[in-house]
Amino acid sequence: MSDIHTIPYKIYLEEHEMPKAWYNVRADMKNKPAPLLHPGTHQPMTAADLEPVFCKELVQQELDDVTPYIDIPQEIRDFYKMYRPSPLVRAYCLEEKLQTPAKIYYKFEGNNTSGSHKLNSAIAQAYYAKKQGLKGVTTETGAGQWGTALSMACAYLGLDCQVYMVKCSYEQKPFRREVMRTYGAQVTPSPSNTTEVGRKILAEHPGTSGSLGCAISEAVEAAANQEGYRYVLGSVLNQVLLHQSIIGLETKAALDKYNITPDVIIGCAGGGSNLGGLISPFVGEILRGEKQYRIIAVEPASCPSLTRGKYAYDFCDTGMVTPLAKMYTLGSNFIPSASHAGGLRYHGMSSTVSQLYHDGFLEAVSVEQTKVFEAATYFAKVEGILPAPESSHAIRVAMDEAIQCRETGEEKTIVFGLTGTGYFDMVAYQRFNDGEMTDRIPTDEELAASLAQLPKVD
Amino acid sequence: MSDIHTIPYKIYLEEHEMPKAWYNVRADMKNKPAPLLHPGTHQPMTAADLEPVFCKELVQQELDDVTPYIDIPQEIRDFYKMYRPSPLVRAYCLEEKLQTPAKIYYKFEGNNTSGSHKLNSAIAQAYYAKKQGLKGVTTETGAGQWGTALSMACAYLGLDCQVYMVKCSYEQKPFRREVMRTYGAQVTPSPSNTTEVGRKILAEHPGTSGSLGCAISEAVEAAANQEGYRYVLGSVLNQVLLHQSIIGLETKAALDKYNITPDVIIGCAGGGSNLGGLISPFVGEILRGEKQYRIIAVEPASCPSLTRGKYAYDFCDTGMVTPLAKMYTLGSNFIPSASHAGGLRYHGMSSTVSQLYHDGFLEAVSVEQTKVFEAATYFAKVEGILPAPESSHAIRVAMDEAIQCRETGEEKTIVFGLTGTGYFDMVAYQRFNDGEMTDRIPTDEELAASLAQLPKVD
Repeated sequence: MSDIHTIPYKIYLEEHEMPKAWYNVRADMKNKPAPLLHPGTHQPMTAADLEPVFCKELVQQELDDVTPYIDIPQEIRDFYKMYRPSPLVRAYCLEEKLQTPAKIYYKFEGNNTSGSHKLNSAIAQAYYAKKQGLKGVTTETGAGQWGTALSMACAYLGLDCQVYMVKCSYEQKPFRREVMRTYGAQVTPSPSNTTEVGRKILAEHPGTSGSLGCAISEAVEAAANQEGYRYVLGSVLNQVLLHQSIIGLETKAALDKYNITPDVIIGCAGGGSNLGGLISPFVGEILRGEKQYRIIAVEPASCPSLTRGKYAYDFCDTGMVTPLAKMYTLGSNFIPSASHAGGLRYHGMSSTVSQLYHDGFLEAVSVEQTKVFEAATYFAKVEGILPAPESSHAIRVAMDEAIQCRETGEEKTIVFGLTGTGYFDMVAYQRFNDGEMTDRIPTDEELAASLAQLPKVD
Repeated sequence: MSDIHTIPYKIYLEEHEMPKAWYNVRADMKNKPAPLLHPGTHQPMTAADLEPVFCKELVQQELDDVTPYIDIPQEIRDFYKMYRPSPLVRAYCLEEKLQTPAKIYYKFEGNNTSGSHKLNSAIAQAYYAKKQGLKGVTTETGAGQWGTALSMACAYLGLDCQVYMVKCSYEQKPFRREVMRTYGAQVTPSPSNTTEVGRKILAEHPGTSGSLGCAISEAVEAAANQEGYRYVLGSVLNQVLLHQSIIGLETKAALDKYNITPDVIIGCAGGGSNLGGLISPFVGEILRGEKQYRIIAVEPASCPSLTRGKYAYDFCDTGMVTPLAKMYTLGSNFIPSASHAGGLRYHGMSSTVSQLYHDGFLEAVSVEQTKVFEAATYFAKVEGILPAPESSHAIRVAMDEAIQCRETGEEKTIVFGLTGTGYFDMVAYQRFNDGEMTDRIPTDEELAASLAQLPKVD
């Protein structure tokens, strides 16, 4: 390595080069994501149906599938400037250690206290809640990254924040809870006795370690039962992908600045927020017939919605209180094993990502967590960043692609999303370091059983 | 706030603007820091005396008080590029919330997995050890930041790394230990039974929570007893301040780029590595008669070496196995209370910083940890970064300065060092959030007792 790299280790946009509008990929989709359906009537949800649960302006964003660019309010752009632009990093060290001719880049979203990309949508949702004059918001969190991000955004704007945290994460990550508390949030392990749906789930599954689906049910109920509160969600929804498009827009601007065209774009996929945001502007180019890219969604083998799920209408939560979304799903009553990538333990997948996958614009692969942690540990030593388990799914596949290039001699340009850091995931690393990590993959029978209970929609 | 800031929220140097040489402030000091003395003969330590303990090239750097600039080897500069340049952040949000006319900047060193500035010297020391053909290095760590940084550097270069971690930090921060393990280091709580000096300290102070001074003794002994090992230290030494000058050089380059002249420069002070590095180039200007700045060292009231210590020769460690350094000290057998700023729990202060303080080039203040955590929590909410307890000492005093400006109307430019993040300090935050944090300040009698045991040097 030397000083004469024409491309720096880290590409930072200038402040004035930061995106001033989010990109709404749905506007360029010929096959629009299917609408949310009312769980009772099975009719498309209207703004009036959604507004008791979500903030008004966010409902508009949720339903808008025609406007390609939506301005980012100045206040949100100012907040973004505290921790953005995030760097697009050229992984020179990783390339060298892997002895690959591939060029590897990663968009690193972990350099903020929430530890992930989640802050991009948290500040947007909190901003619109504040603008509407609300007192506070409720939400769920899996790995704790979304809850932390929302706590930070709410503290900044002076909003109350109530977080239902998936029980296995709550127990594995006491310090995540403490970060949220430091930011003034109220954190409850889910399922809990504080909601009707929580009590029901506990009665049916005593000793459950919880899931994102359960926690969503509880947070929705909590919002409905409090005056001046609305529910906010860190993934899955169209609005979240819209906000997260900042990741892809910055990535594309940074690549364009140096005339770099990626061959492969890789992101981890749980609910689809990071993946959807990262790939949006690139998929837009594909949809408009301007470019071709290979796009890979990486999901955990323990919760394989794209690779083993069914494309169907399903509830977004375990308690079946939410609208129905058409998505790749494992069934809303599927409870994944207590893997360490809490942020990927979701039974479904964003409707937008699902539609794009269904239409062949992206591939999907699933990987086992022990392989993921091998990649994470390797990456930490070589690139100096200890990655989140979720992000490490993308690292695993990016490394596999680069290793393949070593064998074929191809000089592919690989871009992947490094969504966050693993500083609050040390229990997982400890288990891996001690050789105690296992892989638990659902059997075909288990999946068939949970899929058999999908709601019937004509 | 608006888009028309002429100064961005974050000033990043371009890669080609990064310093290519470290700055050695001793070259510009008329009164040089007093030399290390041999603990037996009380004669100045020679290179030959030091080389059994330290790497050769580092010994040269330790003793060199005449060369103003020392080239940074290309390999170290390449490593720096993975996580540097670090941003100089304009604290627009903090200024607004404090309603101060002051302009506040902070140099943020926490955006790397070690969580602090320590990596700047860790990679340098590991590099020279590797170059010398050594097998490994031993060291101590307080808060765990230095140990983590050294583990990262050693993993990168393929060196063995043995860390003695101050027992109270080891217990408060199991996850720090796990990060070090992930990077392949061997971590032992100190005092331990693995060394003679450790066994002696345990016998004399059963149940002690340890200190940096104890851990140093053990690490030095461990290096001496293993073929192909040397001892490395994360603070106090001249060589460390030299490496850490990168902080100040980048800060000054970023300020110069926008024609900003600071009035006040503030840093926390434990052993002096961050403070010394941050202020070096500014002090250089003062020493050469080019500029004037007010410089403030902030130390914990529980371990107040500058404000309540004595300027005298003392051992660098508790076990009295190291050379004697002339410094502001509380006595090498002083064991500070188990405060949460583990990185500041050191009885002495870098000889260079001590000499500068003695000659009136800087001021010093001490602050109590409850006041520090008030500032830390406020800063986290406003600026979106959860700071390390150590760094928060500087935040406290920077905020106090800014609040004073609000009262006087002065538009001072305040620069402080934000050395790291508090992600592994959540036990401390929890105690603060629960209202259980206390301040334990040594009595005059306690200090007199430990100072009475200073070695007698003519």
